Amino acid sequence: MKKIEVVQNILKANDYIAAQNQQLLNENGVFAINIMSAPGAGKTSLILQTIARLKNKLRIAVIEGDVASTLDSERVRSEVTDVVQITTRNMSESCTLIANMVSRALERMPLRDVALLLIENVGNLICPSEFALGEHRRVVVSSLPEGDDKPMKYPVIFADADAVVINKVDFLPYVEFDISSFQNALRVLNPKVAIFQVSCKTGIGIENWCSWLLTELEASRQRSPHLTSPLKGEE
Amino acid sequence: MKKIEVVQNILKANDYIAAQNQQLLNENGVFAINIMSAPGAGKTSLILQTIARLKNKLRIAVIEGDVASTLDSERVRSEVTDVVQITTRNMSESCTLIANMVSRALERMPLRDVALLLIENVGNLICPSEFALGEHRRVVVSSLPEGDDKPMKYPVIFADADAVVINKVDFLPYVEFDISSFQNALRVLNPKVAIFQVSCKTGIGIENWCSWLLTELEASRQRSPHLTSPLKGEE
Repeated sequence: MKKIEVVQNILKANDYIAAQNQQLLNENGVFAINIMSAPGAGKTSLILQTIARLKNKLRIAVIEGDVASTLDSERVRSEVTDVVQITTRNMSESCTLIANMVSRALERMPLRDVALLLIENVGNLICPSEFALGEHRRVVVSSLPEGDDKPMKYPVIFADADAVVINKVDFLPYVEFDISSFQNALRVLNPKVAIFQVSCKTGIGIENWCSWLLTELEASRQRSPHLTSPLKGEE
Repeated sequence: MKKIEVVQNILKANDYIAAQNQQLLNENGVFAINIMSAPGAGKTSLILQTIARLKNKLRIAVIEGDVASTLDSERVRSEVTDVVQITTRNMSESCTLIANMVSRALERMPLRDVALLLIENVGNLICPSEFALGEHRRVVVSSLPEGDDKPMKYPVIFADADAVVINKVDFLPYVEFDISSFQNALRVLNPKVAIFQVSCKTGIGIENWCSWLLTELEASRQRSPHLTSPLKGEE
């Protein structure tokens, strides 16, 4: 009993800090995406492809969440200036980013100048679904070699996503992955989800994904009174 | 502070139940393996390959841990009789099996007749490393499409493994995965770990993995006074 109460209090406190984060982001005109996946599905590669495609249009910042190591943030830092690494290994929650970690990362960012914040969560299909960070959209990356049964096996994270990016479609000849069956299972859980088929290796499908991102960013600005600043970085 | 205390109490209670589980397994001459990996790395396929190779030598039972769905246990049930499914979705810990769940599963198994128990943990490279289940050996499956940086990014689970199975080696022509660099990083964390390169699709390497399993089972019997029964199922 005691544990359940503590967990509920933690989640309530997290939601409160997440709401504060979102308010801060809105006030500064920053649109934030929480990118989640199993280890090795391609979150960092998707971020790199997104930066390559959008960095001339928008100023992009990145928060890199990892249990250990700075491997991903090193890859990203060569492409954009504003990268903050969060290493969760010795924190109270090590299996996901939580709002409090993101709050401290935001303090180290020039939010006034940033238009798009990409948050790479810890590689995990379970814990991150429970913790809001203050993001405007939640994205799950699922890759072909993982198998097409993932929406059924990890339903919570898929049910709650605004978009699912099916990555590594270039593996289609080498794996047994039924894209229709994956999409059908996903739509049963989440009828409104946007679905993209991409390969971060070949670049296929990235344009559609980035168009969605820009459309959602604009839609979010129209809904939020604070998010009305023009696309920063566009001169 | 309060949360850290609660977490420590949970881990202490878990260790106590795990020790009870191991004693029960020892008394019944059952050798248990805890198989952990990221989602989609191939735990179920490794279990199916192991059953195919060893079922004429040993009576094998399986515990299938999943957040949701019975997809994996259905695949396994066609091969062995003794399969118990644990679905963690609505439990206090959903991101890993814990000793208490295994304890209840063991009550439903004919332990006297079982020689080898394969426990498939929830697909996750973080939470399962914290919870002992009562197993005799811990095995991590890591697959080529996930990338060769996983030991550095998820060090705790790799540091604590008795064996690491590198699965999907048939993907070598299609992915950038440096097997030597993976093995070197792994050996820095865990110098004594046994490493196997396998493909559960083609069957390559499965024989070496199964030989190790049999050797460890015999070694464990020699060390444990209770694990002295002959290989069950061998007539």
